[in-house]
Amino acid sequence: MNDILTELRAQLPQAAFRDVTPSYLEEPRGRWQGQAVAVIAPATTQEVSVVIAACAQSGTPVIPFGGGTGLVGGQLSDEGGAAPVILSLERMRALRDLDPIGGTMVVEAGAILEEVHSRAAAHDLIFPLTLASQGSARIGGLLATNAGGVNVIRYGNARDLVLGIEAVLPDGSIYHGLSPLRKDNTGYDLRHLLIGSEGTLGVITAASLRLFPKPAAIGAAMMVVPNPEAALALLRMAKARIGEGISAFELIGKTGLDFLDEVGPETRQPFEDRPDWTCLIDLGLGEGHSPEDALEALFGEAFEADLVHDGVIAQSQAQRQELWNLRENIPAANRLIGAISSHDISVPIARIPEFIARAPEALAQIGQFRINCFGHLGDGNLHYNVFPLQGETASIYQDKRSAIKRAIHDLVHSMGGSVSAEHGIGRLKVDDLERYGDPAKLAAMRAIKTALDPQGIMNPGAVLRSAP
Amino acid sequence: MNDILTELRAQLPQAAFRDVTPSYLEEPRGRWQGQAVAVIAPATTQEVSVVIAACAQSGTPVIPFGGGTGLVGGQLSDEGGAAPVILSLERMRALRDLDPIGGTMVVEAGAILEEVHSRAAAHDLIFPLTLASQGSARIGGLLATNAGGVNVIRYGNARDLVLGIEAVLPDGSIYHGLSPLRKDNTGYDLRHLLIGSEGTLGVITAASLRLFPKPAAIGAAMMVVPNPEAALALLRMAKARIGEGISAFELIGKTGLDFLDEVGPETRQPFEDRPDWTCLIDLGLGEGHSPEDALEALFGEAFEADLVHDGVIAQSQAQRQELWNLRENIPAANRLIGAISSHDISVPIARIPEFIARAPEALAQIGQFRINCFGHLGDGNLHYNVFPLQGETASIYQDKRSAIKRAIHDLVHSMGGSVSAEHGIGRLKVDDLERYGDPAKLAAMRAIKTALDPQGIMNPGAVLRSAP
Repeated sequence: MNDILTELRAQLPQAAFRDVTPSYLEEPRGRWQGQAVAVIAPATTQEVSVVIAACAQSGTPVIPFGGGTGLVGGQLSDEGGAAPVILSLERMRALRDLDPIGGTMVVEAGAILEEVHSRAAAHDLIFPLTLASQGSARIGGLLATNAGGVNVIRYGNARDLVLGIEAVLPDGSIYHGLSPLRKDNTGYDLRHLLIGSEGTLGVITAASLRLFPKPAAIGAAMMVVPNPEAALALLRMAKARIGEGISAFELIGKTGLDFLDEVGPETRQPFEDRPDWTCLIDLGLGEGHSPEDALEALFGEAFEADLVHDGVIAQSQAQRQELWNLRENIPAANRLIGAISSHDISVPIARIPEFIARAPEALAQIGQFRINCFGHLGDGNLHYNVFPLQGETASIYQDKRSAIKRAIHDLVHSMGGSVSAEHGIGRLKVDDLERYGDPAKLAAMRAIKTALDPQGIMNPGAVLRSAP
Repeated sequence: MNDILTELRAQLPQAAFRDVTPSYLEEPRGRWQGQAVAVIAPATTQEVSVVIAACAQSGTPVIPFGGGTGLVGGQLSDEGGAAPVILSLERMRALRDLDPIGGTMVVEAGAILEEVHSRAAAHDLIFPLTLASQGSARIGGLLATNAGGVNVIRYGNARDLVLGIEAVLPDGSIYHGLSPLRKDNTGYDLRHLLIGSEGTLGVITAASLRLFPKPAAIGAAMMVVPNPEAALALLRMAKARIGEGISAFELIGKTGLDFLDEVGPETRQPFEDRPDWTCLIDLGLGEGHSPEDALEALFGEAFEADLVHDGVIAQSQAQRQELWNLRENIPAANRLIGAISSHDISVPIARIPEFIARAPEALAQIGQFRINCFGHLGDGNLHYNVFPLQGETASIYQDKRSAIKRAIHDLVHSMGGSVSAEHGIGRLKVDDLERYGDPAKLAAMRAIKTALDPQGIMNPGAVLRSAP
């Protein structure tokens, strides 16, 4: 074990060695406690290559580490086996290139998402990936997990926002694929294979990102709908009226608003009586268009059709931010309450109301819970989180956790959905992937893993079970 | 060799066996002459699985065959080795599902692109992939080669239009991945690995395609620009003014217009003097917007800025079609003249004018030629085709072909471009991929190929050189 440290000390500058502090061994929900023989933070792609090559030589596991915000334990090794080297990208944050005309930015993997937003904003452009952890999540981890977030309805998932990547493969070789070309059909698409592979096939060290014109005018509204069916009908109506101008379409259940009231963070609630179901709609329109007018017209038509009963249209950017705070503070409230089991699921969009109707029936067989259901209706992606009754804590429900997870995931699978819509497999859902995954796909994944990483050093135990 | 035929006859209905007619052994430019032990056209995915499993058992090569329109020889085996089974998807054309609300269509791989267009149009939706061969190209081949075409600037390449695929892998197993989910992060992205792998890792048998709202109003204009720099400036101006409303932005050089005049197909030319450089701009706008007005305003601003000297704005759909005929008839004229060497290249968009300036200098070292340069300016993708002088034929230039290709491809590579932007590698560009490809990527591709197709039966010799 010390051999690898000796080897790395011989090859890397002192600055690359970080203290093994708890921040590298914990994750947001506190479910895993990691271990590490060392935390190495290289300054260059070449140094990443040195680390991986040395680990390959000695058969030492490597856990790539971004912002540490992942929710499925992909960034922590709790395997009984050899302690891994944690490879942190935190020192590789450089902006290598920004081409405002071509609409591309080349950044290193350690860049924090909010930094990338600011860099783009300086040129009146946007990098549209937007999610709650953007103040600490890093580009490398966001791509390794193919992150989603609130703007997928308009701009796609993380993979859709990437033109090229640079990565270090499990033998230490460097894949130079940062080309910003819009069209390049020269062989297998390694970019898309590495994106979403959660560090099990290599480490992304830099990426060419697609930038988009900043919409000339943005606006938001919250609309109260009587039920999820009406939310879906409102989504259809909005799509027909506003089309590509819809940047986000979120569904918020009453429990999330209750939680904010119960534990904070303190958030201004726009409706006196917290509604059962609310839609948060965000628009980004071109020059000469008014989001307020578009939302007003949508509300009017939806009101006529009995799809909405109440609503608030933001009249300023501050008001828009207030509406978004509601949505963005819900994950923090969830953490304060403490979930028994959290589910990041998707089903075909048209079946969302059916899922919302059937899931509580499935859970009723197991016990009584509070359900916080919210998420990205426009993508068919819900966060369906199960909590203890008020006044109780999740710990007393531990024995029910696996039955809850199984009930929800069985239902999702039976409806043609996915048990990991945007968070990935990590270590949390390896069993689920084995249970619900297509056997031919799993066999192909294992063959690819063995082909590219024959020793199994890259993030072992994530996505695929380690060889025994 | 007859063993495999005996085996297949035992397992498949008679209807699956097609005559080995020349259409299966030729390609559009007449560069290859294929061979085949049999042409099999299964009616179901299960039958495809039977064919592949039998070929795997006997080590027989399999060449997947779509519409036969590919331009790089990916659909024909001219290897000296064992004659392959040609696996034609022509009998698998079913529309399995169309969800107008979710905006998805599940079709089998043999569906012809124009059929897919019509199916979508029946619901006021579009499937935006559009290219010259759409009357015969089939979905399976279009995805296997990640086809591009004229609408990439707005909607992306073929891979960006696919939510899921079903495929038969090289061992005959069936990958069921037709899920129409917008978000599904459960393991490696086999979809994107198979798309663009040109049938070397498996056969796509069906796909879930993304459909888009049909723009409320479409329109087109041809604008005469003094040079490629002005064309690029016009593109930027159009993007700033019209943004996502630009469906296509094509550059047409004078040689293409000359060829139409010289050999046909007969096409109405909009300008009395054929201009050196013309841009064909297509718009698709939402309700309440006029493409004619938008194009008029763009023309006005561009004229003021000295970027355009003349132009035609289509005043009817018939006129729009006439403008598009000019663009779409150029490949046919090229075939009638007969190219010495054709190049499907891309460079970073901002460097297009530099490429257009430097390529003739590189060719001047080799001889005198006519150059037809046209293509998808909005994607940085040009078709840069080299022809004999008027009155001569390509055959007398045979000895110069490889020098021409080398000169163009060296230049493209030195400019950070791709030697295969949208047509793929096939058998034509295996050498180029070896010469210009990233070594780490090539090693990873070979490892993946060996892992998924250890016997090398799937389209051997395409993309990667066959093992000796």
